[in-house]
Amino acid sequence: MYRRYNDSSAEIGRLLEILYPIRRSLISSGSEKTLNVIEEFVSGKIEVTSFLSGTIIDTWEVPNKWELIDLKITSENGELLFDLSDSNLRVVIGSPAFEGWVDLDEFIRHCYVHPSISNAIPYVTNYYGNPDWGVCLSKDELDFLKFNHKKIHVSLLTKSQPGALQIGRLEVGNLDYSAEQIFFSTYNCHPQMANNELSGPIVWSMLAKALIEISKVRQLKYKYVFHIGPETIGAIALLNSRFDEMKSFMRAGHVLTCLGIENKYCYMPSRDGNSFADKALKFCFDDLAIDYSIKSFADRGSDERQYCYPQVDLPVCSMMTAKYHEYPEYHTNLDNLELISIKQLIDSYNFYMHLINIYETNYSPIVKTRGEPMLSKYYLWPSENIAGFSANKNKAMLGLLAECDGESDLIDISKKLSLKYEEILKIATTLKGCDLIY
Amino acid sequence: MYRRYNDSSAEIGRLLEILYPIRRSLISSGSEKTLNVIEEFVSGKIEVTSFLSGTIIDTWEVPNKWELIDLKITSENGELLFDLSDSNLRVVIGSPAFEGWVDLDEFIRHCYVHPSISNAIPYVTNYYGNPDWGVCLSKDELDFLKFNHKKIHVSLLTKSQPGALQIGRLEVGNLDYSAEQIFFSTYNCHPQMANNELSGPIVWSMLAKALIEISKVRQLKYKYVFHIGPETIGAIALLNSRFDEMKSFMRAGHVLTCLGIENKYCYMPSRDGNSFADKALKFCFDDLAIDYSIKSFADRGSDERQYCYPQVDLPVCSMMTAKYHEYPEYHTNLDNLELISIKQLIDSYNFYMHLINIYETNYSPIVKTRGEPMLSKYYLWPSENIAGFSANKNKAMLGLLAECDGESDLIDISKKLSLKYEEILKIATTLKGCDLIY
Amino acid sequence: MYRRYNDSSAEIGRLLEILYPIRRSLISSGSEKTLNVIEEFVSGKIEVTSFLSGTIIDTWEVPNKWELIDLKITSENGELLFDLSDSNLRVVIGSPAFEGWVDLDEFIRHCYVHPSISNAIPYVTNYYGNPDWGVCLSKDELDFLKFNHKKIHVSLLTKSQPGALQIGRLEVGNLDYSAEQIFFSTYNCHPQMANNELSGPIVWSMLAKALIEISKVRQLKYKYVFHIGPETIGAIALLNSRFDEMKSFMRAGHVLTCLGIENKYCYMPSRDGNSFADKALKFCFDDLAIDYSIKSFADRGSDERQYCYPQVDLPVCSMMTAKYHEYPEYHTNLDNLELISIKQLIDSYNFYMHLINIYETNYSPIVKTRGEPMLSKYYLWPSENIAGFSANKNKAMLGLLAECDGESDLIDISKKLSLKYEEILKIATTLKGCDLIY
Repeated sequence: MYRRYNDSSAEIGRLLEILYPIRRSLISSGSEKTLNVIEEFVSGKIEVTSFLSGTIIDTWEVPNKWELIDLKITSENGELLFDLSDSNLRVVIGSPAFEGWVDLDEFIRHCYVHPSISNAIPYVTNYYGNPDWGVCLSKDELDFLKFNHKKIHVSLLTKSQPGALQIGRLEVGNLDYSAEQIFFSTYNCHPQMANNELSGPIVWSMLAKALIEISKVRQLKYKYVFHIGPETIGAIALLNSRFDEMKSFMRAGHVLTCLGIENKYCYMPSRDGNSFADKALKFCFDDLAIDYSIKSFADRGSDERQYCYPQVDLPVCSMMTAKYHEYPEYHTNLDNLELISIKQLIDSYNFYMHLINIYETNYSPIVKTRGEPMLSKYYLWPSENIAGFSANKNKAMLGLLAECDGESDLIDISKKLSLKYEEILKIATTLKGCDLIY
Repeated sequence: MYRRYNDSSAEIGRLLEILYPIRRSLISSGSEKTLNVIEEFVSGKIEVTSFLSGTIIDTWEVPNKWELIDLKITSENGELLFDLSDSNLRVVIGSPAFEGWVDLDEFIRHCYVHPSISNAIPYVTNYYGNPDWGVCLSKDELDFLKFNHKKIHVSLLTKSQPGALQIGRLEVGNLDYSAEQIFFSTYNCHPQMANNELSGPIVWSMLAKALIEISKVRQLKYKYVFHIGPETIGAIALLNSRFDEMKSFMRAGHVLTCLGIENKYCYMPSRDGNSFADKALKFCFDDLAIDYSIKSFADRGSDERQYCYPQVDLPVCSMMTAKYHEYPEYHTNLDNLELISIKQLIDSYNFYMHLINIYETNYSPIVKTRGEPMLSKYYLWPSENIAGFSANKNKAMLGLLAECDGESDLIDISKKLSLKYEEILKIATTLKGCDLIY
Repeated sequence: MYRRYNDSSAEIGRLLEILYPIRRSLISSGSEKTLNVIEEFVSGKIEVTSFLSGTIIDTWEVPNKWELIDLKITSENGELLFDLSDSNLRVVIGSPAFEGWVDLDEFIRHCYVHPSISNAIPYVTNYYGNPDWGVCLSKDELDFLKFNHKKIHVSLLTKSQPGALQIGRLEVGNLDYSAEQIFFSTYNCHPQMANNELSGPIVWSMLAKALIEISKVRQLKYKYVFHIGPETIGAIALLNSRFDEMKSFMRAGHVLTCLGIENKYCYMPSRDGNSFADKALKFCFDDLAIDYSIKSFADRGSDERQYCYPQVDLPVCSMMTAKYHEYPEYHTNLDNLELISIKQLIDSYNFYMHLINIYETNYSPIVKTRGEPMLSKYYLWPSENIAGFSANKNKAMLGLLAECDGESDLIDISKKLSLKYEEILKIATTLKGCDLIY
C-alpha cells in the first residue's frame, strides 16, 4: 500500500540540514520554528495547543520561555576561544545571562564537562531549578584552558520570559470521532543533536506525509494521531488534556526516537508487554526477518515513561536502533549528522510503514462452513489425489482455514504457519472472496 | 470390567479376510456390503442415514455411486497382462469405462504410478472432477510394458449412476437422551488396503461388540456412539445433520484409524489439545506404560480435520501406531494383510477398552470430613505409631484424601501420586464405602 | 518495630529447662502444666476450650486422660535396671499399668526399640487402640538385657480416666471482630523431646510475648491468633469449632515446629502453594538472604495436614530448620536439649518477627498523578541533568512509582526492583508523605 522512500534521500537530507542547527529547548522560538518546518514538509496542518508559563499541569508548572541568544568566551588578549558556531550545546539550558571577566577557578565552577568522554561537549539542562549561569566544554577544551589562561571573559546572552508550552497534533486517516487510533509520538526540545532528537521528528514527518498522501486515494481503518512536543512535560500536558480519549481509542502507540544510527534493532516493551502494539511490533521484526534485542521496561527513558505510567497504562512500545543511554555519543555534540545515516532513517520509516500495513489489514477471520469446504469446487484444490500426496499442494490454505476460529488474527496465523504476512493476507483475501470465511 | 480378546485371533482373522477384497469407494455396493458384514459381526443394529447423489451438504455435493466392475489389460497377442485378481487399486476411483486398443504413449498418459516406490501400485482417486479413464500400475510394471509392448488393449468396466451416500451409526450404553457421549468414528471408503482402512473398522467392530455385551450385564455411564461412513464427506454429512447434539453431549471422541501395524504408538491431539479426551488418552498411555510420540495438530489428516475444524471444535483426538502419510506403504497395494498383525489389532482394542474403563469409573471425589478422618476407627490405620514411621504404611490413602478437593479427578490424582489408575480407583472405592468421601 | 532477643538467652534457657521434663500426652496434667508455664512467660491470658473424653468431633472421639506415674524395671536380684530418671519416653503412651515378673520372651513382646538407631529410645504412642502394656528401650539396652537376664520385674504405673482435651488460644493486636488474622499454631502433646516439640512452643511464646508488648505502644493492623493444643486432634477440634471464622478472616498462618536445630532452612508450602502466606514467607527468606530448600506438600507431616486439608484449605505454610521425619534423632530421646541451640531459637523468632513486620507494613500503593510527578519540586530529584546521567541518581524512586499500579504490593515491588524491603518501605513512606501515591 505504501510509498517507499528509496529515491528520496535528497529530500530527507535537506530536512535534516534545516532542522539540525535550530536552537530548541522546552519552550523556545526554536521549537516553534521546528514545528513550522515540519508542517511545510508534510503538507498538512499541525494543530497547536498552548499552555502559558505558570500553568499548573498535575504536579508540574510550565516554566518560562528560554532563549539562547549568543555566547562568546574570549581570552585575556581578546582572542575568541569558543562560541556557538560549532555547537549550541555550549550553554546550559536554562542558564541566566552573564557578562564579565572571571578567573580560571570561577570559570571551572561554572563549566560542565562530560563524565567519561574527553572530547565530548555534554548536553546539560536545568529547567526546573534556579541555576547559576553555566557553560559546557569538552574536557579536552577545559584542560587546554587551564594550561593557557588565567582569566577568561564570558559573554553569555540568554533570555527568560513568560511564554507558552506548545504541543502539536496531526490527525490523518479515519477521522470518525469513534475511530480507533494508532498513535505516534516524538519530541522537539533537544538542541543540535541528531539521533536522540532529529531522527524522531524526521521519521515522524515521513510517516505523516506518506499517510496524508495515501489517505487521499484510500479509506484507512484507523485514525493516525501524530503528537509532537517537548519530552516529559509535553507528554504529561497531552495526557492531562486528552486522557479519556487516548484510553478509549488508542489501539497501539509508538514513541519515535533514536531511529538514525545503523545498528542492531531493539524493542522497548510497553508496561503491559503483551498489548496489541507489542504483538504487532514484535511480529513486524520477524516478518521482515530483522534480528533484534529486547530491552527491559525498567530501562525505559523517553515518553513511554509517561504513556506507560501506572493507571495511564497505554499500549505504547517502540523500536529503536541505538537506544538513548546506550550509545556513547548520547546527549553530547558527538551525536551529530555524521553519526546517523539517511539510509537508516528510510529503513526505520519502512519498518513503521510495514507495521501500519499490518495494522490496516489485520483481522480475525472466522470460517463459514461446518467442516472443510469443497475447495475443488472453487478451483482451489486438485480433484485428483495420488497416493495421498495432493494434500500438500495447498497445505497453507487448509492450514489457514484450520485457524479461522475468530480468536486468531492474521498475525497469529502467520506466526503459527511460519508464513510471511503478505502470503497469509493473500490467501485470506481469496477465501473471503469465495465466501468461505468472514 | 472388559472382555479381553486374547483368545479371539481366529475371529478377527476371518473378519479381515472377508472385508479385505471388497471393492469400496465413497458410494458403492462394496461400502454397503462392508456395513452388513460388520453388523453381523457385532450382533447389533447399525442405523443407516442416506444422502442422495446431488444433495447439497454445506459447500459439498454428493457424487454419483461409482462401481468398479472389471479390468483386463491384454497384449497385442491377447496375453492377459493385468487384471483385478491381485489388487483392485488398479483402477482410478471415479474413472469412466473404456474399451479399446491404445498405443503405448496414450496408455502412459492414462496410467498412474507411485511417485517414489517402484513396486507399489498407488491408490488414486478422482471423486469430484470429471476425469478421463485411468489405471494404476507400479512403476516396475509400467517399465516392463514400455520395453515389451507397442499396443495394449484395455477393457475397463465401471458404472457411475445416482445412488446414496450412507453413514452408519450404532449407539450402546446409557441411551438416555441427555447422556454424555463417547464417540468413535471410522471410515469404509478405501478399497483393498489394510492399515489405512481395515484396521479402523476392525477395532471399531471389536469395541462395539464388547460394549454391546457389557451393556447387557451392567449400567454404563456414557452413551457410546459409533459412526462409520466415507472419510471427509461422511464426517461432514454427520456434522451437518447432528451438530447440536454432538456439541452438547460429546465428552470425548476418537477417530479409529491406522491401528494395525506393530510400531511405536503416537497421539494426534484435538484442536484444543487439552480437552478431556486428550487428557484421558495421554494418561492411558502412561498408565499402560506405553511409550508414544506426540504428533502436531498441523499433521492431522483423517476425519479429525472435520471434527476439529474451527467453530466445530469437538474433543476428538486419536491414538495410532503407524500414522497415515508417515509409513511408506501408505495408500498403495503394499498396505496389505502382511503389513498388519492381529496382535496389534487386539492391543489397539485393549488400549481403547482401558480408556473406556477410565471413562466409566473416573470422577472427582470430595472429602466429607473437616481435617483428616480417624482412619484407625475404620481399620484403615494402625493405632500404634513407633517413632513416626507408621504414617508411611498407608501413605497412598492419606495422599488420595489430600487430593479430594472436587477439582482433581482420579486421573489427576493417579498422576500426582504416581500410582496406577487401578490402585487409586480401589482406594477411592474403599473410602467411599466408609462414607469418608463423596 | 520489633524487640530483638539478642540478650535474652538466659530467659529462653530457663523456659526450656522447665518445660523439657514435663510428662505430656494428648490429655494429661503435663500438657495443662505446660500451658500454665507458657502463660506466665508471655504475661498474657491463654483462653482454654475443653472437650470432654468421649466427645465426638467429626469422625474422632476424644480419648481418656492418660497419666504416666512411674516405671521401674528391676532384675532377678532386685537391681534397678531402668526407670524414668533419664527419659520419660520409656513408656508407650496409652499403655495400661502392669506389675509383675515376666520372663525374657514375654518382656521382649512388650518392648519397643527403634527400627534403625541402636542407642535411641523410640517415642511410641497408641492413643486410639486398646493396647497391651508396653515399654521402650534402645536396642543396645534390650540386647544387654537378653544376655544378662532371664526374668525381669516390671512395675509400670499409669492411669487412664475421663478428662478433657484442652486447646489454648491467645489473641493480640487488632481485636476488632472483623480484623484479618495472622495465625500461629503449635502443639504441646509430646513428652521430653526438644526440636520436635519444645522449639515450637518456645518460639510461639517469644512471638506472643513480643506482640503483647508491642501492642501496648502501637496499633497493629492484624489480629494475631496463637493456638496451642495436642497435634492432629487439637487442630481438628479447633477447625470444627471455629472454621467459618478461620476461613473468613485468616490472611496467613504458620505452624511453629522444628525450629531449634542449626541447619539449612526449609519451606513447607500450603495446599495452594501461592497463598499470601507462601508469598510472604518465601520473600522473607530472600529479603533476609537466607538460603532454603523447598519441601513438597506431599511430605507435610504436622498440623498443616489438617489446616490444608481439602475443603479446609487455609493459607498455612511453615518454615523449619530440621524437618520432622528428616533428621535422625526425630521421635527419639536423642532429640534432646543438646541437639538444639538457643541461638537458633532466637534466629527462628527473628525470622518470624521480620515476617510480621512485613505483614504489618505491606500494602499495594497506587500513583496519584497522571504521568511522573515533578519530583524536583519535592526536592526528590536534582534539577540539573548532565548528559542524561542524572536519572540514575534516584532510579529506585522512579522504579517504585512505575510499579504503583494497585496490583503490586511492596513485596512484589521489592522483588521486581531487587531492593531490600526496608528500602522500598522507606521510599513508599516518603512518596506517601508527599501525597504522590496512595
